[in-house]
Parts: sequence; structure tokens; C-alpha cells
Amino acid sequence: MTGAPPSPTPKPEVRSGLVGVISHRSSISSIIGATLTYRGINIDELTENGTFEEIVHLLWEGSLPRQPELDALKAELQSAFPLPGAVIDSLRTFPQDADPMRVLQAGMSILGMHDPDAASNAPADNRRKAARATAQLTALTCAYHRVRKGNDPVDPSPALGFAGNFFLQLNGREPDAIETEAIDKALILHADHELNAATFSGRVPSSTLSDLHSALASAIGTLKGPLHGGANRAVMEALEEIGSVDKVEAWLEQKLAAKEKIMGFGHRVYKHGDPRAKHLKLMSKKLGELTGQPHWYAISETLEALVTAGKDFPPNVDFYSASTYYCLGLPPDLYTPLFACSRAAGWIAHLFEQYADNALIRPRALYTGPTEAHWVPIDQR
Amino acid sequence: MTGAPPSPTPKPEVRSGLVGVISHRSSISSIIGATLTYRGINIDELTENGTFEEIVHLLWEGSLPRQPELDALKAELQSAFPLPGAVIDSLRTFPQDADPMRVLQAGMSILGMHDPDAASNAPADNRRKAARATAQLTALTCAYHRVRKGNDPVDPSPALGFAGNFFLQLNGREPDAIETEAIDKALILHADHELNAATFSGRVPSSTLSDLHSALASAIGTLKGPLHGGANRAVMEALEEIGSVDKVEAWLEQKLAAKEKIMGFGHRVYKHGDPRAKHLKLMSKKLGELTGQPHWYAISETLEALVTAGKDFPPNVDFYSASTYYCLGLPPDLYTPLFACSRAAGWIAHLFEQYADNALIRPRALYTGPTEAHWVPIDQR
Repeated sequence: MTGAPPSPTPKPEVRSGLVGVISHRSSISSIIGATLTYRGINIDELTENGTFEEIVHLLWEGSLPRQPELDALKAELQSAFPLPGAVIDSLRTFPQDADPMRVLQAGMSILGMHDPDAASNAPADNRRKAARATAQLTALTCAYHRVRKGNDPVDPSPALGFAGNFFLQLNGREPDAIETEAIDKALILHADHELNAATFSGRVPSSTLSDLHSALASAIGTLKGPLHGGANRAVMEALEEIGSVDKVEAWLEQKLAAKEKIMGFGHRVYKHGDPRAKHLKLMSKKLGELTGQPHWYAISETLEALVTAGKDFPPNVDFYSASTYYCLGLPPDLYTPLFACSRAAGWIAHLFEQYADNALIRPRALYTGPTEAHWVPIDQR
Repeated sequence: MTGAPPSPTPKPEVRSGLVGVISHRSSISSIIGATLTYRGINIDELTENGTFEEIVHLLWEGSLPRQPELDALKAELQSAFPLPGAVIDSLRTFPQDADPMRVLQAGMSILGMHDPDAASNAPADNRRKAARATAQLTALTCAYHRVRKGNDPVDPSPALGFAGNFFLQLNGREPDAIETEAIDKALILHADHELNAATFSGRVPSSTLSDLHSALASAIGTLKGPLHGGANRAVMEALEEIGSVDKVEAWLEQKLAAKEKIMGFGHRVYKHGDPRAKHLKLMSKKLGELTGQPHWYAISETLEALVTAGKDFPPNVDFYSASTYYCLGLPPDLYTPLFACSRAAGWIAHLFEQYADNALIRPRALYTGPTEAHWVPIDQR
């Protein structure tokens, strides 16, 4: 190749934030206008009819499961919930006040140390790891929460599905039907979202042929950020800061005057509304009434009315998930972990795609620094 | 904004692997043709004259340190080497056969749980965390290696610099001058490399305003891949498989016939030679002679001659680092961790840039799946 042309000089067009850059072909989820689909099925249909396990199958296999396939997947997830004892030992060495998202990131790497297929990227091995990692991420979230409170982890129940077992392993009691429904809907709504930052972030390690667990740990670290999955927790902190409906207006005026960001509104991709928000809004209202704390929904609704008045700046998926999770009794620092437990299904579907048709993800930078600098001995600096 | 135009439909130009896409402006390192600079200073000058600590200052602050600045940085790194006791406790819960890159990824998240400034992205807090994380990543590498062998971690010595303390904490004895020099050169040569996959991968979490430790854990997971930092380990495995100079040709023919990738050659960015390779080639030769095992260099040189015969496919930074590290007594599964301990300095410089001028990194995908699918009840699937 000595006759090859010199390396092409990149045109100095900087695509900051990769806005509008298409980095991948993907057949997993589509965002077209304000419509989100998984494998072509509208998220509304999935949320109204499905369970999380059906959606996991849909994302990974491309189709809704038949009964035997669903039974097999449920059994596979169920058997993967119990964490290796050494992983619980690791959790017990963590500080009690650790951010649970750090625990999930560390925990995912540690699970990779124990997974028998960890080092292989072969499709069949990845498929086995996928079910384990998905169940174990939920088990990690629940086990750390219990350990930090001085309680022991709780075993899952084969009588419950994924959503019910999330609740059981967290709280040590079986959920009501409405609690199961709320978690199931939250898991379905968050399960995939095209090339969001966390999903893209998981694809980068896999593009160097690093393994599934390493890639998932990367995605968790990205979801943690307040401009991404961390937003639902920030919304709840705002609702608590507001405290009551009559204080919403003054709070908002003060935030806007200080030019602070109002979390839970707007979206990089959806400019005129997030199709997931309405499902969580309904759930927030229902749960608030049922649990005798309708004020979180009322504060949220009032804030929404004020923020959106005369402006096309609608609430996103994070906004009503905050009050929904609060009414479910989830501590605010587990809101983003619940998001991660769901999105893991989507991350894994994207990792399957990445491994199946890989190209190393490696952009360039436009160099803006000095060009003619030289070494100077220390006594002459 | 109700009169705003509809979301623009992205043009279906897929930039697979982001080849040639410029995602950032950066003033840290430049790759122009076959010349690599840090802050404008040619890597050759830095490798021939510098110590790792001087390069860390150069990358973070933009200039070579004056003596008091260098003394302060050395003291800062030195005092950060000893790991919190609870982190050692965590290491002791890991399997003895864990991939050290998983240990570093988990360890970085765990260090974030213990760092007093972990949750803040303020520049001064990030600068303090930077020194701690850089020293602790080396301490983690060494401590895990000792713990897995049944030994206790070794305290660093204030009489040694960063490179010397890497060696001491790993082996429990002070290094010779040549050992220190080899590690120092390896640390300098690997410290930054523009938007390589791992560095880019660290920028993605920070673009959601996730924190420094979470971003570094992401970068570690990406470096782990055999198409990236994992290559130096793969080179050593190949050298061991070959075993002696007379077997190189047959080994290569067999690999080429099986269409297997020969690790340690070629580079996404350098098409005509990696400027770092020559320094490690020299070091590999010198160390091989000094330690009485010149065959690793001889095998490498023979392989290079055969692979590059008539082809412009030169060795990259990974190729001669393998035999260099082997002669230093490093176990092959610590080659990529040593790379990480060095590159952490560059990752952090890039994170400083990202936080200072942030844009959420979020590309789009071209949807290629079904568009008119619908929910089907389970008994009709």
C-alpha cells in the first residue's frame, strides 16, 4: 500500500454533541416525530397491553414472544435474580451513603468477574449474559438498598413477574396490583430510546470488542448524569423543595430569574412532546389518589401548566415518573437505578446490534492548541 | 415556539464508526500526519526528556511545570496513593482470577463512593479528584495484583516518582534505573492520544454531567477491548505462542491463511507509522539484552519484518510495548492496566475540556426496522 494517498485531512466542520450526526443503522426503536416504537410497535400499545418480559423479548428477538418463549424467558430471568454470595460481600464493603448509580456501575463490573461467559462476545454467550445481567441489575439495586439499611437481601418469588419481583426484593413484601402495574409500565416506557447518550455510550466500548458487562457499566455511568437519567431524581428534589401547590409560582419565578434549568421539561429529540409522559402522568394521578398523597401530582400539574404556558416546552418522561415513584415508596436516589434496570434491556439489544456489525467508534478532534511548542529544561521554564 | 418548524428529518448519511466526524475542538494533543504532540510539544521530545509527572502537569495545565509546581503535583500524587481501607476490603471480595481491567473499572466506581468531592463537577473539585484518581488507579492495579497473589499492598515511597512507585507498589522492591526509565517512557507515550475510543467514551458520560469517576470507569471499559488497549496483551500472547525466531514465519502464514488479525499493526489514524512505536522498540531491545531474554525482541523484530514486507502496515504503540513489559516482569494481564494508569492523565484533561464547554453527546440512528407493526395478544402470536 506504499502508493496509497496521504491520510485525508478532515474538513474542519465540528459536529458538537454529534447533533444530527447519524452514527448507526438500527432496527430496535424508532422516534419519528412524536411517535416512539419498539420494533415498529407504538409505545402506547405496548404500555397498555404488555409486561416488561414481553418487551424484553421484543427488543432482543425482534418479535413478541409466544407463550413457550415467554415462559422460558421468565424462568431465565427468575433464576438469575439471586446474586453470587461474593457480590453481596462486595456490596457490604461499600459506604452506606453511596450513590446507588455508582453501586450499579461497580456492581456490573463485579458481576462480570463472576459471569462464566464474561470474556466471550459470541452471540449465544451474549444472549445468556443478557438475561443474567438484566435480572442481576435489578437484584443489585434492591440488595444494596437493603444492605445499606442494615437488612438482608430478599429472595425473589417464582409466583411474581419481573416488576413484582423488583418490588418484593426491594421492600420485602409482595406488591398490590396497582404497584405492579406502575412498575411494569415504568419498565416498559424506559426500556429503549434509540441512541440516547447512555445507549450510545454502551456501544463505544463494545466497538473496541470489550465485553457486555464492561459496556453496560459504561452506559450506567452515562445514565447517571442529571442531563439524562438523573433528571427524574432532580424533578423529585424540585417537587419537595416546592412543597405545596400554592408555592409553585413563586418557586418557578425565582428559578427562572436565577436562570436555573427546570428539570423534566424539553428533550433533545422530541421538540413538541414526549409520548411517554402521558402514561406516567396518568399513573402519577392514580397512585397519588390511592396512596392519599395527591399533592405531588397537583404540584406537578401546576408546574407543568406554568412552564408550558404559551411555550412549546412540554414535560418529558422524567417529569411524572418522579411523583409516580414517590407514591410507590421509592427513595429518590433509586429513581435513576429503576430507569437503569429497565434501560438495560434496550442497552443489550443495541449491544447485540453493535457486535453483529461492528465498526470501531472513533471520531476526530479539531486541534486548537499550540503547534510550535518545544521542550524546555525545568530551570528555564 | 408553537410556530416552530417540525423536527428536521436527518439526512440518511450514516457515519459508521464516526470515521472522519469531528465531534470536538480540543487543545490537548494533536495528531498531524505521523506527528503526535501534547500541547504542541512533539512526543519524541517529551519521551526523551520528561517524567510522567511533568507530562501530567502539561496535559492538565497546558504548560510544563516549574519546579514548585512539579513539587506540589508530586506531593499531591504521592499522598493520594494509599487506598482507603474499605477499597482494599472491596478488592478482597473479588475473585482471584478477575480480569484486572474489570477490577480497575469497578475500583474507579468504588473510589467515587469514597471521594469527598465525587458529586461535584466544579473545576476546583475536579482538579483535586484528578490527582487522587490518577494515583489511585495505579494503586488499585498494584494492590489487586498483590491481593490476588495472597500478598498485602505495599506502601509507596516518597523517595520515588510516579513510575518508581508503580514498580514498588507492584513488586515490593525498588526498581533499577532502567526499570524506572522504561515505565516512565511507557507512561509518557500512552498518556494522551486525541479522541481515541476510550477518551471519547469518557466524554460521553461527562456530557450528561455525570461525574469524573463515572466517566473514567466508562473509559476503562472501552480501553479494555482488544481493538484498543487490550491489543498489547494480545501481542504478548502471540509472541508466547510463536515461542522462537525460527517459528515466526510458519506462525504468520498460518494466521494469514486463517484470515486472523495480526495484533499490534496498523492504526485507525496513523496510516504510515505510529510515532510512539520507535521508543518502545528501543526499550524492548535494551531491556531484553539487560534481562537476558533477547528472544522476545528478536521474535518481534522478525515478525515486524515479515508483516511489513512490501506493505505499508507498520507496528503501532502496542507492538513493542508487549516485549518491553514482559522484560519488566509485568504479567500480561497488567499490560492494559498500565496503559490505563497512564491514559487516565489524558482522559482527565479531556474531561476538564468537556465540562468547561459541554454539549450533550447524542447522535441519531437511521431506523431500519418495521414501521407498521402492532400489538398482538399472546394467544394469536
